[in-house]
Amino acid sequence: MLANIKVPTLLLDPRKCERNIARMSQKSTDNQVAIRPHFKTHQSQKVGRLFRKYGVDKIAVSSLRMAEYFAADGWTDITVAFPVNILEIDRINSLAGQIHLNLLTEHPTTIAFLHEKLQHTVGIFIEINTGNNRSGKTWADRALIDDMLDRIQASPRLEFRGFLGHAGHSYAARSEAAILEVHDRSRAIMQAFRDQYEDRFPDLIISLGDTPTCSVAQEFSGIDEIRPGNYVYYDVTQSLIGSCTVEDIAVALASPVVALAPERNEIIVYGGGIHLSKDRVQGAEGFTIFGLVGEWTDKGWSVLTEPDTYVRSLSQEHGVIHTTPERVAATRIGDLIPILPVHSCMCADLMKEVYTLEGEKMEMLSYLEPA
Amino acid sequence: MLANIKVPTLLLDPRKCERNIARMSQKSTDNQVAIRPHFKTHQSQKVGRLFRKYGVDKIAVSSLRMAEYFAADGWTDITVAFPVNILEIDRINSLAGQIHLNLLTEHPTTIAFLHEKLQHTVGIFIEINTGNNRSGKTWADRALIDDMLDRIQASPRLEFRGFLGHAGHSYAARSEAAILEVHDRSRAIMQAFRDQYEDRFPDLIISLGDTPTCSVAQEFSGIDEIRPGNYVYYDVTQSLIGSCTVEDIAVALASPVVALAPERNEIIVYGGGIHLSKDRVQGAEGFTIFGLVGEWTDKGWSVLTEPDTYVRSLSQEHGVIHTTPERVAATRIGDLIPILPVHSCMCADLMKEVYTLEGEKMEMLSYLEPA
Repeated sequence: MLANIKVPTLLLDPRKCERNIARMSQKSTDNQVAIRPHFKTHQSQKVGRLFRKYGVDKIAVSSLRMAEYFAADGWTDITVAFPVNILEIDRINSLAGQIHLNLLTEHPTTIAFLHEKLQHTVGIFIEINTGNNRSGKTWADRALIDDMLDRIQASPRLEFRGFLGHAGHSYAARSEAAILEVHDRSRAIMQAFRDQYEDRFPDLIISLGDTPTCSVAQEFSGIDEIRPGNYVYYDVTQSLIGSCTVEDIAVALASPVVALAPERNEIIVYGGGIHLSKDRVQGAEGFTIFGLVGEWTDKGWSVLTEPDTYVRSLSQEHGVIHTTPERVAATRIGDLIPILPVHSCMCADLMKEVYTLEGEKMEMLSYLEPA
Repeated sequence: MLANIKVPTLLLDPRKCERNIARMSQKSTDNQVAIRPHFKTHQSQKVGRLFRKYGVDKIAVSSLRMAEYFAADGWTDITVAFPVNILEIDRINSLAGQIHLNLLTEHPTTIAFLHEKLQHTVGIFIEINTGNNRSGKTWADRALIDDMLDRIQASPRLEFRGFLGHAGHSYAARSEAAILEVHDRSRAIMQAFRDQYEDRFPDLIISLGDTPTCSVAQEFSGIDEIRPGNYVYYDVTQSLIGSCTVEDIAVALASPVVALAPERNEIIVYGGGIHLSKDRVQGAEGFTIFGLVGEWTDKGWSVLTEPDTYVRSLSQEHGVIHTTPERVAATRIGDLIPILPVHSCMCADLMKEVYTLEGEKMEMLSYLEPA
């Protein structure tokens, strides 16, 4: 595969990827919690099929187009874990006629709109803000939640499924203990909603759990369904917050060397913000990094963990790697260097296709809307 | 156009865009400096054609694929303003047989490789680092530059064109004075190379000038050719550093409202990091922002400059707008909000197509390599 690469190319190590998938499925089984992996990270039908081997039969996605794409590959139980965009009602009606579609909302206007326009039954989750402060309602919004539940119950095509939370602030944690604090606090918040509403809705589902919390936690009581997504590939951020090791990261951008700056101990590669995204993270040494650097092995790549080797900056097409004088001296123009992304979801979304180490192309959801 | 939008959509105001193009062309004429606009921002053949009206007949691009794309639309003088990726020699040979192709390098290995492999004549610029510390050589590297020049002169298919610098650190400036300081310092650095080498190469070109410096400077002596690119659209970063006003920004992402958080004075839109990019900038009030917010007018949009209205955060598909209680109260689920990008180059690259306010689709370079 490497011999054929001429431009920045996203590579997948299927062994690492399957190991990540298997481990999370095992954890869900061990803890008797359902798993509904979020497919927004890989956005690939082929990668999605790897999950079936490990018992996955329902998924979450972040857009209706992504739901259509995976429905076309045989997934029949899909939650769009993003607040309903009412402008896409035609798509909702089309999908809801084909699969078990669950939607997410936190506003009565959306419920009223769906009540009026839906042509098929959909499941509805109400989004709870467990501290991430993105979308979702809180305990203080109970009157509004009651209003929403009344509207859902009165509507023949809306079926209340339960409460869904996304503790995205776990990504800002920097230790197992900090992740577990987010996890336990989020579970407690969701539990309050279960206690409040389970008499009225005995089958309500509590859906909670992202890659950091699901990777680290051993205790899932109070949760019916987890929705981790990033773990399929993991990334540098996840390794830094403690969700995984750098050797679990299943994707790397093969980046051609185009310039050398020995006076600054830097290597300049073709591989920039349009490939890796401009996402960044505070590295172990305290400064901002845009990626970690690997080296090729017989079986794929390993990750360089020496503290002075990292991607220092990215512009549109350039990546600047800071490293040791020895590594700069050993590097040649035209070499390929594997870069581990800070955020694999954003990187995969940019690259639009990923190749296994053996050269198999894993197509992804294409970007553009159909004409 | 707005009535047809259902998902995040990048809109172009052609009046602002043409005004930006016209102003820069006029400035190049007034200062008797050639203009070679960088087309990596818009990446669109249709947008590129707008430049022809204003006397532009040569361009810069950031990849060989982009060069192929614009060559296919009739551009015959193209500089790939990115260090040569020797792995793409087949593409170089193919393009060099069709157009006047200029390449950029800073390493003798690249020169030696091109000498051996080139099938057609190409122009060569040597890249100078004027302080941006990305790629490029400095005054201390004169022995290496002499070696490169000897190799170029000895090679029948390599024609030395001159020295090219990119003062990308102008993007970190936060005032006209700071931009001008970068500009003047970069000109002085380039002048030293002209003085050193013009006896040997009387026709050498000094190519220098990005959007911040070219927008602000009135003095271009010592420069033969400017290469601004971002000015075609400008963006929030450019407005903050003083290159333009917010009303010059020619693109906005129409983003559907999907949730409301009146308790935090926030509006949540469908429009996230996969649309706007995760690029961010320190706003006028000192905190990090991911975009500015506009409102629709009869002719397009205007920009809200009240200090507490801005995009506070982005995740993959969500954008969180912080604003006033009054604006939250006046906003409805399903409304469209125009968001001005922090970095228009990254946003356009992500969106892959842009629509004029009248609904005309401006196609862009598609991402994927041909199969």
